[in-house]
Amino acid sequence: MPARLIDSFATTGALADIFSDRAVLAAMLRFEAALARAQARLGMIPQWAADAIARVDCLDSASLAEDARASASLAIPFIRALTRLLDPEAAGFVHWGATSQDLLDTTLVLLLRLARGVLSENHARLASALRTLSDRHSGTVMLARTLLQPALPTTFGYKVAGWYGAVDRSWRRMSRAFDEALVLQFGGAAGTLAAYGDRGPELAAALANELALRAPDAPWHAHRDRLATLVAHAGIYTASLAKIARDIALLMQPEIAEVSEPGGASSAMPHKRNPAGSVVTLAAATPVPGLVAAFLSAMPQEHERAAGGWQSEWPTVAAVMQATGSALGALAETIDGLTVDPVRMRANLDALRERVDLPGDYLGSAEVFRRRILKDSE
Amino acid sequence: MPARLIDSFATTGALADIFSDRAVLAAMLRFEAALARAQARLGMIPQWAADAIARVDCLDSASLAEDARASASLAIPFIRALTRLLDPEAAGFVHWGATSQDLLDTTLVLLLRLARGVLSENHARLASALRTLSDRHSGTVMLARTLLQPALPTTFGYKVAGWYGAVDRSWRRMSRAFDEALVLQFGGAAGTLAAYGDRGPELAAALANELALRAPDAPWHAHRDRLATLVAHAGIYTASLAKIARDIALLMQPEIAEVSEPGGASSAMPHKRNPAGSVVTLAAATPVPGLVAAFLSAMPQEHERAAGGWQSEWPTVAAVMQATGSALGALAETIDGLTVDPVRMRANLDALRERVDLPGDYLGSAEVFRRRILKDSE
Amino acid sequence: MPARLIDSFATTGALADIFSDRAVLAAMLRFEAALARAQARLGMIPQWAADAIARVDCLDSASLAEDARASASLAIPFIRALTRLLDPEAAGFVHWGATSQDLLDTTLVLLLRLARGVLSENHARLASALRTLSDRHSGTVMLARTLLQPALPTTFGYKVAGWYGAVDRSWRRMSRAFDEALVLQFGGAAGTLAAYGDRGPELAAALANELALRAPDAPWHAHRDRLATLVAHAGIYTASLAKIARDIALLMQPEIAEVSEPGGASSAMPHKRNPAGSVVTLAAATPVPGLVAAFLSAMPQEHERAAGGWQSEWPTVAAVMQATGSALGALAETIDGLTVDPVRMRANLDALRERVDLPGDYLGSAEVFRRRILKDSE
Amino acid sequence: MPARLIDSFATTGALADIFSDRAVLAAMLRFEAALARAQARLGMIPQWAADAIARVDCLDSASLAEDARASASLAIPFIRALTRLLDPEAAGFVHWGATSQDLLDTTLVLLLRLARGVLSENHARLASALRTLSDRHSGTVMLARTLLQPALPTTFGYKVAGWYGAVDRSWRRMSRAFDEALVLQFGGAAGTLAAYGDRGPELAAALANELALRAPDAPWHAHRDRLATLVAHAGIYTASLAKIARDIALLMQPEIAEVSEPGGASSAMPHKRNPAGSVVTLAAATPVPGLVAAFLSAMPQEHERAAGGWQSEWPTVAAVMQATGSALGALAETIDGLTVDPVRMRANLDALRERVDLPGDYLGSAEVFRRRILKDSE
Repeated sequence: MPARLIDSFATTGALADIFSDRAVLAAMLRFEAALARAQARLGMIPQWAADAIARVDCLDSASLAEDARASASLAIPFIRALTRLLDPEAAGFVHWGATSQDLLDTTLVLLLRLARGVLSENHARLASALRTLSDRHSGTVMLARTLLQPALPTTFGYKVAGWYGAVDRSWRRMSRAFDEALVLQFGGAAGTLAAYGDRGPELAAALANELALRAPDAPWHAHRDRLATLVAHAGIYTASLAKIARDIALLMQPEIAEVSEPGGASSAMPHKRNPAGSVVTLAAATPVPGLVAAFLSAMPQEHERAAGGWQSEWPTVAAVMQATGSALGALAETIDGLTVDPVRMRANLDALRERVDLPGDYLGSAEVFRRRILKDSE
Repeated sequence: MPARLIDSFATTGALADIFSDRAVLAAMLRFEAALARAQARLGMIPQWAADAIARVDCLDSASLAEDARASASLAIPFIRALTRLLDPEAAGFVHWGATSQDLLDTTLVLLLRLARGVLSENHARLASALRTLSDRHSGTVMLARTLLQPALPTTFGYKVAGWYGAVDRSWRRMSRAFDEALVLQFGGAAGTLAAYGDRGPELAAALANELALRAPDAPWHAHRDRLATLVAHAGIYTASLAKIARDIALLMQPEIAEVSEPGGASSAMPHKRNPAGSVVTLAAATPVPGLVAAFLSAMPQEHERAAGGWQSEWPTVAAVMQATGSALGALAETIDGLTVDPVRMRANLDALRERVDLPGDYLGSAEVFRRRILKDSE
Repeated sequence: MPARLIDSFATTGALADIFSDRAVLAAMLRFEAALARAQARLGMIPQWAADAIARVDCLDSASLAEDARASASLAIPFIRALTRLLDPEAAGFVHWGATSQDLLDTTLVLLLRLARGVLSENHARLASALRTLSDRHSGTVMLARTLLQPALPTTFGYKVAGWYGAVDRSWRRMSRAFDEALVLQFGGAAGTLAAYGDRGPELAAALANELALRAPDAPWHAHRDRLATLVAHAGIYTASLAKIARDIALLMQPEIAEVSEPGGASSAMPHKRNPAGSVVTLAAATPVPGLVAAFLSAMPQEHERAAGGWQSEWPTVAAVMQATGSALGALAETIDGLTVDPVRMRANLDALRERVDLPGDYLGSAEVFRRRILKDSE
Repeated sequence: MPARLIDSFATTGALADIFSDRAVLAAMLRFEAALARAQARLGMIPQWAADAIARVDCLDSASLAEDARASASLAIPFIRALTRLLDPEAAGFVHWGATSQDLLDTTLVLLLRLARGVLSENHARLASALRTLSDRHSGTVMLARTLLQPALPTTFGYKVAGWYGAVDRSWRRMSRAFDEALVLQFGGAAGTLAAYGDRGPELAAALANELALRAPDAPWHAHRDRLATLVAHAGIYTASLAKIARDIALLMQPEIAEVSEPGGASSAMPHKRNPAGSVVTLAAATPVPGLVAAFLSAMPQEHERAAGGWQSEWPTVAAVMQATGSALGALAETIDGLTVDPVRMRANLDALRERVDLPGDYLGSAEVFRRRILKDSE
């Protein structure tokens, strides 16, 4: 599914798809089917009812968004639409004992699991491209620049290793945050699973099993720290990508011309070559800090389910994940196709030496540090 | 067009439509048609070419978003697609002398003009409902509450007038911000309109006229303060709506029960009645401060066109406008249907008097202030 | 008073002084003195009591901040400390009929009025320097750059006019926001001024007069849109300064070397010259969008006085004003001392022409636009 | 040292002290002394010079902040002031081979280590109070509330366990973030430690040892992900505190009156008792999401040292740590002194049962979940 035009740089086709109506409904249906199957397995509802529920595989979404506004919950019109597709007897077993938030939070978790797959693959591609680039240029001398002014010589390989180190650390944290956040939500109306007598935890375990999710120690309706951790680490990861993109855009200034991206034609000026991948990376990454703040500011949620804060989360989480994927996709492609000009790097260093009293060419421990960074992440 | 499910509370159908692919493309085509017509009128291109360009009324958007990523510009694949629909001779006159940003910024302005219409209508409805409610309850005594504790008596009419005053002031500022932001962008590749010799300003005026927009004193490619002002005022307006929603949700707690929204059924608990409209308002409004920050942090844009900051704006601006519309729509409906319980208001006041040493019933200048607020905005 | 070291780039001495304990206490005492005098004039309290209150001109602040935490209000320990300095009879007339928020909000307004004075003076200096610079370089040809790549020729005078236009518009908005926000807060415990019978508005007018502030139509305890408008416009103004600083830092890269700041020595590398003023401007401006979000997210305040949101505002507002002043001070000095190198500008243009197929030297309407911008703000 | 009045709720005395000029200078001197000692040990500078440098134990800070602005670096005037206190021979060995950022980043790390101590102690106090409270009320039945409406019965013990679980998880993450962020910064002018030949890593290890810090794999001048992680986790931790404070303020509404804080007198209304601790917690926590965004948006830092982003960090990091400490201190005290009213909890449940068709008293798995949460964090 193509991204919306307005979101051209804010997502990719693959990620837009993961948060599309089709995917949201599929995840919601999957939750209800899994719940029914788990309940049937534990003898709580008849197997035929579970089978009937699990057979529904699509739903008309036309008025769901509008109807969701009337009840402040997408779950309510969804359940209504789902039961209408079933015969009355089976309909009575839909969503039995669960609450809207169980369905909606778990749906989000299922979508996030899909997003993780896409991000993970692209991260691996970027990480590998960065390692290769660093190794290839371990001996390519260039200017280190501080405050946009020449500092001392360094190597492009060490510079790239610095990029890689930040991206690698940030991804590891984000990956742990995914591990922690991808857990079932299942607490019933008040977080006590009261509808199931003392069999709540047993059912939670069975439901988690159906969905191949971990069951957390307890429902987390009003406690959003796991999701917040994921959102925050996506923010840090994306900022680490943006730092690379900024460096590339700066190095690609024609007066510096030390690296060059493929692509990037201009509409009005055929002579220009734009740092298109870096620009897309920066365009995707720029709004993310504000989105992280949006999530955090919704966290002080009232009692056992918030009046507004919780309901605000979906677009924010979806936007953060998609921005991460967009920045990552653009940057991976940029690094893959990056042209490096060692001659120009050397020339810039020499040219500056004539104008400023630049110390010698000694590279100090650049290579030691470079190897350490790459080793740390093996 | 229905909103995406994930955006159920973050937009409305009407506003989702305004930022849809269909609407984006229509606005882009409108810009190119207007440019061609203005150029034909000034004798810069042949009338037949302008006619041909203006006749194009739809475009295949399937791969545009993906192609936009390759050039970091939606304008480039759009122009390519547009020219492919024309015979080669006319094609050469498309977008003549203009730059991507002229097209894209003006497109955004055209969409914002549509959004303004929807918001304006809903604001009028909300404002009128608030005035009526305030007048109706000018004599309805209730507790003023500070730090969520009982303070002194006030009137519900005065409380509502306070809500109204903030919303009215915020809308007036936002309306002025629309006036200021809804201007043509037209500067050519470097903001000098160099392609048109000394006829640039004349063409800008003609193009503005075609689009029924004002022409600003100069192109504003890298100067985003007018848009920022609009985004910020949408943030303040939305926060003023959220304050009302928060008050209503608090007053609707059953232990207080002084007002009540229509609607709001719960999926798991048929006995419950939720403050659905307030929740949707708060859900829409909560992320907006972060979005405002996202816009502001993109403002320090490099030289004559940014490498990332500018390209980040569309999703943020669209999200802010849609959130504003969503919060506004939900709140207007809530206020329209709000049930007020003066007996309970009085009972809460009396009940508290037994437990705390509450001063007398004197309302001071509540009514004076109430009338002043309503009068100020006539 | 020197700024704290940790705030070296986040404020200036003059602005740190305005938000210092000494200044806060002076403004608080001024409010209480003005209230007493206004009440004496209206015969509400004896003149001798007002005189006694107005005579107090300093207060021990040692434990006030700590004590404020115990009551969630700085006003309570302040009033206690103030009354302890008076004989018991006069003490009984202190703060009579007013509420904590009247004192604290008006104190903030008084501090903001002082901040406005400092900012206004520095803005005038910057604006004048920019106009002069633009005029001086109306004929200095240079490269316009888009996406950090060469675009077409423009003039440095036009570039500076663009900077000026954004700063000038942003300041005008901020100045109007000051006009709107600098109003008395006076509503008593519940916003009804109930303690004063029907004389509340009369007393409010007298008090406003004593403080040389406008009295608004009604108290604004839980309606923070006027302050929010000021904070937001400070955010936009500061972002407009940051754009200039970013451009200068980029132009000062030695490979470009078209402008140069005075000062900026480096500790480790004597050969370096850093864009120190631009860096301070950017350092001050970078956190401001987040601070704006912080203010906006505190706006949905409960009922007649918030439980947390209101109490969060002071550090945010003070930080925004100080950041604005810091960015402004550094940039004004930078522009004042900026060295422009027209020969290098021309050389960069010519050098690029050899490498890319740059169109001719035609400047289009650069000068027309430049003059329009400067004229608009006369 | 008392906090500034303007920061009454934004810090505590202990934390204000940690970021005071005195503490900043002490940490800066400690770095220089440790560097000199490490260099003497490795025979790089004479021992007498190291001794002389290490003997300096205070410095006049009067003009440092102002001077820092001139060079965009606090390190430069600091080194100048330090060398002035030494005889010329020793002065030549000060800061030898190091760069401003080595000094300033490590100073920040040393301050953060102090802050960690204060936070850690207060967290332990809060965590213990929450566990005790949860255990004491494992059988105290009350209403669970969703969307501020009655849901089903739960226990106060389970509710408190939910608070505890979020705070405990968030602290563990923050604690790991401290572990990761508290590392030496030492890279020299360009991150290569070029001044020390091939002995850079050896010196880095010795310096880290002197400061009892870990040495990271490589300098991290332009890679701020470790600090960002700490800032983000402080944001999540603080939001988890704010959620508790919000719940308490809501439960303390007199119409609900299920819990009650100690303290909280009102200036204008002696009959009132305010949720003072919760209000301070919320006041401290409210701006933190914006501060997190401020840090993240500064992360895409140019090349080997940023022009603005890096220099913006100190006030943001200091504000986040202090806000965390303020929220934590206030909440720990609140929980310690919290009065719970089980009779009223029961009465509210029964009263609502008369008005709405509330299901039975069955608590489901509340106690199972409660115990799991407490066990998980043992």
